[in-house]
Amino acid sequence: MNQTSKVLPRIVIIGGGFGGINVAKAFKNEAVEIDLIDKRNYHLFQPLLYQVATGELDPANIAAPIRKILWKQKNVHVALGEVTAIDFDKKLVCFDGGELDYDYLVIATGARQSYFGHDEYRVHAPGLKSIDDALEIRRRLYLAFEEAEWEADEEARRKILTFVVVGGGPTGVELAGAIKEVASETLPREFRNIHCDMARVILVDGGSRLVGPMPEDLSARAQQVLEKMGVEIHLNVHVTDVTEDGVKIGEETINAENVFWAAGVQGQDLAKTLDTEVDRGSRIVVGPDMSIPGHPEVFVVGDAAHATDAKTGKPVPGLAQGAIQTGRFVADIIKQELNGNAPQERPQFSYYDKGSMAMIGRGNAIAAIGKIHYGGILGWISWNILHVMFLVGFRNRFKVMLDWCWNYIWKTRRSRLITGDPKVHIKQLYSDHQPPDVKPGKKNQHETDES
Amino acid sequence: MNQTSKVLPRIVIIGGGFGGINVAKAFKNEAVEIDLIDKRNYHLFQPLLYQVATGELDPANIAAPIRKILWKQKNVHVALGEVTAIDFDKKLVCFDGGELDYDYLVIATGARQSYFGHDEYRVHAPGLKSIDDALEIRRRLYLAFEEAEWEADEEARRKILTFVVVGGGPTGVELAGAIKEVASETLPREFRNIHCDMARVILVDGGSRLVGPMPEDLSARAQQVLEKMGVEIHLNVHVTDVTEDGVKIGEETINAENVFWAAGVQGQDLAKTLDTEVDRGSRIVVGPDMSIPGHPEVFVVGDAAHATDAKTGKPVPGLAQGAIQTGRFVADIIKQELNGNAPQERPQFSYYDKGSMAMIGRGNAIAAIGKIHYGGILGWISWNILHVMFLVGFRNRFKVMLDWCWNYIWKTRRSRLITGDPKVHIKQLYSDHQPPDVKPGKKNQHETDES
Repeated sequence: MNQTSKVLPRIVIIGGGFGGINVAKAFKNEAVEIDLIDKRNYHLFQPLLYQVATGELDPANIAAPIRKILWKQKNVHVALGEVTAIDFDKKLVCFDGGELDYDYLVIATGARQSYFGHDEYRVHAPGLKSIDDALEIRRRLYLAFEEAEWEADEEARRKILTFVVVGGGPTGVELAGAIKEVASETLPREFRNIHCDMARVILVDGGSRLVGPMPEDLSARAQQVLEKMGVEIHLNVHVTDVTEDGVKIGEETINAENVFWAAGVQGQDLAKTLDTEVDRGSRIVVGPDMSIPGHPEVFVVGDAAHATDAKTGKPVPGLAQGAIQTGRFVADIIKQELNGNAPQERPQFSYYDKGSMAMIGRGNAIAAIGKIHYGGILGWISWNILHVMFLVGFRNRFKVMLDWCWNYIWKTRRSRLITGDPKVHIKQLYSDHQPPDVKPGKKNQHETDES
Repeated sequence: MNQTSKVLPRIVIIGGGFGGINVAKAFKNEAVEIDLIDKRNYHLFQPLLYQVATGELDPANIAAPIRKILWKQKNVHVALGEVTAIDFDKKLVCFDGGELDYDYLVIATGARQSYFGHDEYRVHAPGLKSIDDALEIRRRLYLAFEEAEWEADEEARRKILTFVVVGGGPTGVELAGAIKEVASETLPREFRNIHCDMARVILVDGGSRLVGPMPEDLSARAQQVLEKMGVEIHLNVHVTDVTEDGVKIGEETINAENVFWAAGVQGQDLAKTLDTEVDRGSRIVVGPDMSIPGHPEVFVVGDAAHATDAKTGKPVPGLAQGAIQTGRFVADIIKQELNGNAPQERPQFSYYDKGSMAMIGRGNAIAAIGKIHYGGILGWISWNILHVMFLVGFRNRFKVMLDWCWNYIWKTRRSRLITGDPKVHIKQLYSDHQPPDVKPGKKNQHETDES
């Protein structure tokens, strides 16, 4: 019944990440009706998520309400909800708040953490794909130091202060570096019983080098810097088990209370419910025009798509740039077709590599822009400028810059609240250990005696 | 065994709020050993908690890690943990991480929300005493608007957009005013189906006027301003039930999906386990020197104490100033006794009223300083200056000022992420209602047709 009264073309976008937002924005001045649906009410700047996990930034600094981003664009209607089914024949999207019909559909659902078929690892090794993930890592990270401060048993304390990061991609490298910094710069001066060299940070990857997609010389550089900082790097090894005791690498077990997972991503489960091909990582296989074979009105952009670069034949990388570029590409096709000026054949997507970067530590980042590879303080400056530029909202940009400068000068991290129900967590933690038989009073007292 | 080797006097402080922190700081240059234990790792600036609940400020802006506050004071040892028992005879504090012995003990455990014996209300009516409380209110508040946007049934929508605040003290007044502002200023321009006048905010109090402890003329002023903003005020009424349908006031039921509780406080449960008198609100009854009768080495400060002003005979008010002043008073007594220059009789505590204030809304606050009562923009400016001054940390002060200016100019609120597991919450919400039979597409389309 809705069909008969329809006057404007209807576009439904699923997901408010880089892909979805960029599609919506491209229709700013077009006579269309857009529904953008997301299961969260905010757009998240994922590249900075590890800084929330390590207490450097506040969640709200890297997330902006989707409604706020699009409020001036009157042809967009935002919905908070989770899509439960898509009916390609009826051109209908069902979500937990109702149904939406479409003329064009853009699936921009992004990726979630992949445990390569071992979802049981998750409880022991949180991933880093959402604000809630980041807050969970932050909670575990800072709780570990609190716990270690009161743990008298040397071996138990060593286990508490051993952090394993699984996955040596940009996220894993950035997370491992940041944890080491927290352990060696931010915290030691505030604790009385633990020292900077007590915390072990171990970075594990199955490949032969770190940050695989970046050039080899930068991988080597990243490894060198991290090792100099004190991060232990294990390459060419695969995690075979994760338990509350730590991780198993081949036959070796690393005793660690905290394991963080940055190893892989996969598409959302929704993909598997669709009547179309998905790859092993639940990414939807699309044609060179980013549409689903047999359904030219359904596009997939960003991490949700298994797409091949039409020029190089390589997979389109799962980066913010990939989502932005595929989003804009798809929006152009739809606009042309709606305006009746489409070419006879649809264009084919080709990724334009603007370069890639990874932060390693204080004043050090690596960057590859075309054939130019560099690192050190210059890399660090570029990294900071680039990431601030891409943040949504002037105020976020300003506040993030302010935080970075402050943290850089004072070597501190401000946003390290341990939230959630502390009773549950603390009790759970302490129940694993004997109460310390050395009283902190003693320790303090010796220090006072000596001075 | 610890007793024999002891060289320095040991002070244990339970709680890192205004009371506890001020006791610890007073011993900056003293030869003592202090253990400060708190169940959270941060000091919280409670007067601004309602601004976190309404999305104006980030949690980290009003909370500072206790270790960070005290890191330079080498005679303080901070512990994260919950005290389970206190043995007055053995002078021992037991917590989930071990035991601490003391020569002086300061109990500064603060207050928690009181439901006046009806703790079953809590699940339907979260209080506002912790960061987690504030985030729960924020989640419910912003989720309500998302839900209302897609709710087609008029009555159901009215229920979703009815917010009841129980308690007309400063917190209740500030919360009600802020919610009304969110509904009428921040959100309407971002939604397509709901309008500013749809949201009802109802403030309920058992007393005959708002902000009871403040002068009558200011109560009247607060009521006038709030009513002008559109807040409905019910005085002299008692809540007799809170369910998922709303609140019952006497025989009348107000249908409301969101009820927030700002009605009363009580001491922690720990107080009841001690071998000393507590009042009906679980506050520990102390003598005029703030110590527990029969235990001159055990003091109670701030909200945890039931104390009487030695000069006026009135109860010491449960405000930040009360905690700061009792904390400093107690620290002075201990210092004098340790340094051997104590007067023959201990001094008696008397509260110095520096005044009180409450924010009502945009550009409007009430203030009573001595005999001077004022409000409006002048009150608002004083309120802002005072609250920024008392925040811990230069950066927090700067960032809060920045946020306030920004919010004031743009009438927006930035920190309104709906965190927690959205699947659980959204499903739960929507299962209560029929899916809307009016599609949002229709609404949009009419608007487009007309324009």
